[in-house]
Amino acid sequence: MRQIAFLLVAVTMVAGTVAYVLPASGQTHGEPTQIFVTKIPPGYRDFRLISVAHEEGNLNSLGAVLGNDVAIKAYREGKLPFPDGTIIAALHYSHVPSQENNKVFGDPQSFVPGSPTNVQFMVKDSKKYATTGGWGYAHFDKDGKPGTEAALQTCAPCHAKASRDSVFTQYAP
Amino acid sequence: MRQIAFLLVAVTMVAGTVAYVLPASGQTHGEPTQIFVTKIPPGYRDFRLISVAHEEGNLNSLGAVLGNDVAIKAYREGKLPFPDGTIIAALHYSHVPSQENNKVFGDPQSFVPGSPTNVQFMVKDSKKYATTGGWGYAHFDKDGKPGTEAALQTCAPCHAKASRDSVFTQYAP
Repeated sequence: MRQIAFLLVAVTMVAGTVAYVLPASGQTHGEPTQIFVTKIPPGYRDFRLISVAHEEGNLNSLGAVLGNDVAIKAYREGKLPFPDGTIIAALHYSHVPSQENNKVFGDPQSFVPGSPTNVQFMVKDSKKYATTGGWGYAHFDKDGKPGTEAALQTCAPCHAKASRDSVFTQYAP
Repeated sequence: MRQIAFLLVAVTMVAGTVAYVLPASGQTHGEPTQIFVTKIPPGYRDFRLISVAHEEGNLNSLGAVLGNDVAIKAYREGKLPFPDGTIIAALHYSHVPSQENNKVFGDPQSFVPGSPTNVQFMVKDSKKYATTGGWGYAHFDKDGKPGTEAALQTCAPCHAKASRDSVFTQYAP
């Protein structure tokens, strides 16, 4: 379990997501004191490419980082902080050799996405997520199940270490 | 030179492109006997994600494979052969460690796109490129310069070894 949590954190740190969000002040009447991004943003698979990512070690991950129109515009204009409405999606897959490619190549050098492992999101809403730098974080496993609270709690403080508005991923031209 | 040609071929084989195309029969009046795709398809950076790719060895490449609307629709419907109008773009970058990510991780495990190396395309036009399986191939280096004829000649025969209409890249869900 501890290892699973670590993996989740690790993916989160680099690729850009997972959600543990405290509500803006003023919450009352028994509302939860933590807000998680619990729904997968619709249409994210049609977002445009920001970049790609490869993680070795225990993660063994190959991923794509996509952005909605607001995100792509901000990236291309170099606009920081990212404006409200920005959604960044990180699609992760296992990093597996391509038997077909390698056979043609004659060398075991080609790696492609294997099974999906998770999808993670960063959603910018400076009011709703004011206590975590304006970002809501989300993680969903391959079956769409959200990450655990314990894992989600690690997202924001780690992302805060990124030098560009809590976002690690840079735009690939 | 031989090595450069090999690299070009290798990228081509796996990611899906580069152009050496014989014209359909009936060419006359001094027209060239070879057709290269010489112009970069406009708007390709806004194409949607098909998949990502990692090549080790001499290539040391991290890439994204994108498709225009025709390509994405065909992929999602599992339609083979790909219809005319399909454009598949392979954006390649050097595979470099992310100093920032690794510092946060505490482990040298994170790799991201470095400098762009080339962009390659497959363009489906069953009449224009009838002699090469309906595909026109194109390769442009980081400065937009097309690949050499020698390198481009290797594209079609190698892609013909792919089991899905000369396309190696499969759709990542």
